Amino acid sequence: METATLNTELQINSQRLWDSLMSLAEIGATPKGGVCRLALTDLDKQGRDLFVQWAEQAGCTVRVDQIGNIFARRDGLDNSLPPVMTGSHIDTQPTGGKFDGNYGVLAGLEVIRRLNDDNIQTQAPLEVVVWTNEEGSRFVPVMMGSGVFAGAFGLEETLTQTDTEGKSVGDELARIGYAGETPSAHFPVKAYFEAHIEQGPVLEAAETVIGVVTGALGQRWYDVVVTGMEAHAGPTPMELRHDALLAASRLIQGINQIALDHAPHARSTVGWIDSYPNSRNVIPGTVKFSVDLRAASDDVLNAMDAAVQALCADLKGEGRVDVAIKQVVYFPPQPFHQEQVDAVRQASQALGLSHLDIVSGAGHDAVYMARVTPTAMIFVPCKDGISHNEIEDAKQEHLQAGCNVLLQAMLQQAGVAAR
Amino acid sequence: METATLNTELQINSQRLWDSLMSLAEIGATPKGGVCRLALTDLDKQGRDLFVQWAEQAGCTVRVDQIGNIFARRDGLDNSLPPVMTGSHIDTQPTGGKFDGNYGVLAGLEVIRRLNDDNIQTQAPLEVVVWTNEEGSRFVPVMMGSGVFAGAFGLEETLTQTDTEGKSVGDELARIGYAGETPSAHFPVKAYFEAHIEQGPVLEAAETVIGVVTGALGQRWYDVVVTGMEAHAGPTPMELRHDALLAASRLIQGINQIALDHAPHARSTVGWIDSYPNSRNVIPGTVKFSVDLRAASDDVLNAMDAAVQALCADLKGEGRVDVAIKQVVYFPPQPFHQEQVDAVRQASQALGLSHLDIVSGAGHDAVYMARVTPTAMIFVPCKDGISHNEIEDAKQEHLQAGCNVLLQAMLQQAGVAAR
Repeated sequence: METATLNTELQINSQRLWDSLMSLAEIGATPKGGVCRLALTDLDKQGRDLFVQWAEQAGCTVRVDQIGNIFARRDGLDNSLPPVMTGSHIDTQPTGGKFDGNYGVLAGLEVIRRLNDDNIQTQAPLEVVVWTNEEGSRFVPVMMGSGVFAGAFGLEETLTQTDTEGKSVGDELARIGYAGETPSAHFPVKAYFEAHIEQGPVLEAAETVIGVVTGALGQRWYDVVVTGMEAHAGPTPMELRHDALLAASRLIQGINQIALDHAPHARSTVGWIDSYPNSRNVIPGTVKFSVDLRAASDDVLNAMDAAVQALCADLKGEGRVDVAIKQVVYFPPQPFHQEQVDAVRQASQALGLSHLDIVSGAGHDAVYMARVTPTAMIFVPCKDGISHNEIEDAKQEHLQAGCNVLLQAMLQQAGVAAR
Repeated sequence: METATLNTELQINSQRLWDSLMSLAEIGATPKGGVCRLALTDLDKQGRDLFVQWAEQAGCTVRVDQIGNIFARRDGLDNSLPPVMTGSHIDTQPTGGKFDGNYGVLAGLEVIRRLNDDNIQTQAPLEVVVWTNEEGSRFVPVMMGSGVFAGAFGLEETLTQTDTEGKSVGDELARIGYAGETPSAHFPVKAYFEAHIEQGPVLEAAETVIGVVTGALGQRWYDVVVTGMEAHAGPTPMELRHDALLAASRLIQGINQIALDHAPHARSTVGWIDSYPNSRNVIPGTVKFSVDLRAASDDVLNAMDAAVQALCADLKGEGRVDVAIKQVVYFPPQPFHQEQVDAVRQASQALGLSHLDIVSGAGHDAVYMARVTPTAMIFVPCKDGISHNEIEDAKQEHLQAGCNVLLQAMLQQAGVAAR
């Protein structure tokens, strides 16, 4: 297969991309400017139908697999070659925005439309995928469609997952007409790219347009329970207290320091706390809180785990309170693939776009895809780093830039057929 | 008036005191061994009726004032002298115990019964008082009856206070037959003593039987609001966070240190905390918490206030989060009276009881009484310092000791008539 020299004259149609985003965002639009389009609802069906209609109008062949993932294929010169794939998801959080997921899908569609404009043929076929239920708001687990594709979850078990009303994934797929017949198993893919808003503040703070995503952080989540003794705030002298909230606040400080000690990519968060009996003049007797540790490698994640465990053991060892810690979630760190990450970086460079290497702190369909396919991601800034919120926003010029990088990276991997 | 030499041969009837406590505890008894007898309920009426019956059987004259306080009077040799008074309350918390309040009332009754046994006459009359609604569980404010007596609250306004069902203090007093006609205003009282379980761990830890209470701590309560910015835990690097819970945990540490810096009597407690949005993988955006500062003098309390304000201002000054602090409660420190405190200490000494000076961290009816009457309190240990709990417990020998101190202190103040 011949490798094309990057033709940076070829630019995507920014307005068409934007207009498509705005059209899709009308389906499930909320009064506050966001989108509520939960997985496998009637609105999800409408969004899927619109994508399929657009893909077919762009000359693609569409197939749907057994977990409802939609693959829109544009033939290459040699259809025996594994396709170069891109995509994301179009389901949203209940108070979601217009760009999370939708951008990755419609950027892929725009790549195909733009190639069509100039009748550019690729060596390998291209595919744009819409993964089922990335958000996990209605059905768990999150990243369901890509997880089944990558073999992280079994199909049969996943189809039986139910929402809070008891409706199953399988029944809802059938109801909206997206229980496809293509087996939900991964097939050879040359490369997978996913364009996404950053959902964080790094690019905006650095005034940089493109995040070259080198991988995704691993995660360890914990439940911590600090047990002291509740007592009246008035009659109990300081030295006779067993104050669970005071102890927890020391742990919160220490857990924060552990992430600072493992800069730059380490993160630690205490997002949830519950104090009992939570009364103004009673010394707290029991405090429960969550810990979320993230790091780019298992070495760092393990070191952070050891530090948190030691922190809890030391506090317990002082004898003032009891401390119990239990790990409840583990996602391994997922590095992306050198050749595909390089393709994103080189495309940004060739296009003269400011860019920096970045690690994804959040999960994405690309994280499961990376288990079975050479994968990279392209991040673009979003306003104030905010997503999963109706005020989620992104600039048209940034979305355009990310789509241009996607176009170049896909062409570089697929090869352009000689004309 | 002649002052009696202490006759430590005279000892109260420990079993009678204990049996009375157990009988009263049957009214509103809970399955877990506690008592639920909320102010001005049918059960409160039953408890009051039992006390009145016992007081009349002991030869007392009973009168009820307009806020429902019950005064049981045993005449002295000279009834023109102001009485020596003792008492407490018999209303309980919803999950209250057998001793909080009830002990102070029934210890007073036992003093009278014991004097009756030997036909001992005092120079000044004695009175045992049952104050209305000390706990404040059903109606606010707490320490209602003694507060009205001391002029801290107006009668009319207090009678219109309602419970959560909209029933007023005045209507409920009338309904249970305790809307008395005696004016609710303080009259000359020679001395007021109140025996009470400590509700704290100090006496038990010191293996000491009697707490000679020298006064009550002043209190300042605050609401604090820390405002940062909620953000996804995954994509947001440590250095770009505005973590309200992390900031609050620093304040909690600092507020604790402020009490340690003002030992021995200073106390600080963060008893209540609320974190928003309280989700495992979201950096907390807003944290609200309470602060309860206590100290034995206004000088110390003011210094602690300044330190807390400075702590908040410093954190705000760092620019990472906003901090707002508002004082919501102030009770001045209330020293008790030298002569009456000495009477308690001397009685303990004469009776050969281990004793130590102690400051009450909690509010008591005695705190309001001290505004208008020479006052002291007698503390006895309670198990593990626990009260306001159905497992509240105290030893018969400690209750006996406290009652003997009360007897001696009252006789010392009232004077024993020559026989």
